Amino acid sequence: MRVLVVGANGQIGHQVAEKLKEKGHDPVAMVRKEEQVGQFKDKGIETVLADLEKDFSHAFENMEAVVFAAGSGGSTGADKTIVIDQEGAIETVDNAREAGVKHFAIVSSIGAGDPKNADQIKHYMYAKHRADEHLKASGLDYTIIRPGMLQNEAGTGRVKLFEGEPEVGNVPREDVAAVLVHAIDKNQPANKVYNLIEGDTPVEESI
Amino acid sequence: MRVLVVGANGQIGHQVAEKLKEKGHDPVAMVRKEEQVGQFKDKGIETVLADLEKDFSHAFENMEAVVFAAGSGGSTGADKTIVIDQEGAIETVDNAREAGVKHFAIVSSIGAGDPKNADQIKHYMYAKHRADEHLKASGLDYTIIRPGMLQNEAGTGRVKLFEGEPEVGNVPREDVAAVLVHAIDKNQPANKVYNLIEGDTPVEESI
Repeated sequence: MRVLVVGANGQIGHQVAEKLKEKGHDPVAMVRKEEQVGQFKDKGIETVLADLEKDFSHAFENMEAVVFAAGSGGSTGADKTIVIDQEGAIETVDNAREAGVKHFAIVSSIGAGDPKNADQIKHYMYAKHRADEHLKASGLDYTIIRPGMLQNEAGTGRVKLFEGEPEVGNVPREDVAAVLVHAIDKNQPANKVYNLIEGDTPVEESI
Repeated sequence: MRVLVVGANGQIGHQVAEKLKEKGHDPVAMVRKEEQVGQFKDKGIETVLADLEKDFSHAFENMEAVVFAAGSGGSTGADKTIVIDQEGAIETVDNAREAGVKHFAIVSSIGAGDPKNADQIKHYMYAKHRADEHLKASGLDYTIIRPGMLQNEAGTGRVKLFEGEPEVGNVPREDVAAVLVHAIDKNQPANKVYNLIEGDTPVEESI
């Protein structure tokens, strides 16, 4: 499948692109800057230059699936949380629908189901919640992945992926990427919202 | 009409409550703190203690209309823009619908129709936009007022209220309050989105 990876320059997005390629898919890494192209080109991964803060509808041509893994990150303010995490995601959903994309997978956050009662970074949970709600109402087939505390250590290939009430837990970014790729690869979108923390189930059996 | 004024402790909200009272309506000022009650009580205006960041559904009992004039203001960060201006408004809309409110008037902002192309405070324009879109889709009768640059000087009682493409302009907060009260008083919600700047038309003839 031809899959647009939005936020490919981020840690999760980068690994999503690589793992899709390994599985024989045709990922297209959406990056903002020319100097971000080389790292993908070296691995035979196609890129498209596009910016979430401008018109980026050209990036969706002939795409069958989209993985949204962009985020403004911890070093910018809450203004960027609105502009990137919330509105970037919402516009990505709208572009995907417009382009006839079949499956949309998104990195959300484990507290995004109940932002009002979030203990911390409530504004971030609201932004992720608003994006998730927009995706759910879009008519697109979706997979929403809500990981716990993201870790930089290598993935284990084993996770706990579950619906319903969230639990506190950590999860390596690499395992988040693996689950996203598994969801796209399996391509049985059932319009599900999953929590994701570290666990015992092999990623390949998680969905 | 019995009208809940959300954000009654703010400058616009305060004047909305007073002007509704002068017109013979029955405003209820929603305030967060006990010490904010007295200033309304002195003018014979009913109050309800409720906090946008907690459960505030009790405030809507027997309300026929709602004016949302709350805002996190310039002294807090963009995190509060999400929590108050966007999500406070969205939850107010949901509560109003739940309570069977007939008419919902909201203070938006003149750039909120096209946040992506906003010159400045883009995140604020997105937050206001998202709240407006939620109101429009709610099924409630609505009046959305998008004022230009808010001024503290006394109102003139004359405005330019118009649909379509916005124009750059100033407008005293008191005139914004007067237009909101006129919209509620006239009670012919036509589900309109208006821009509002200073002008020559008497408020009473503006809708």
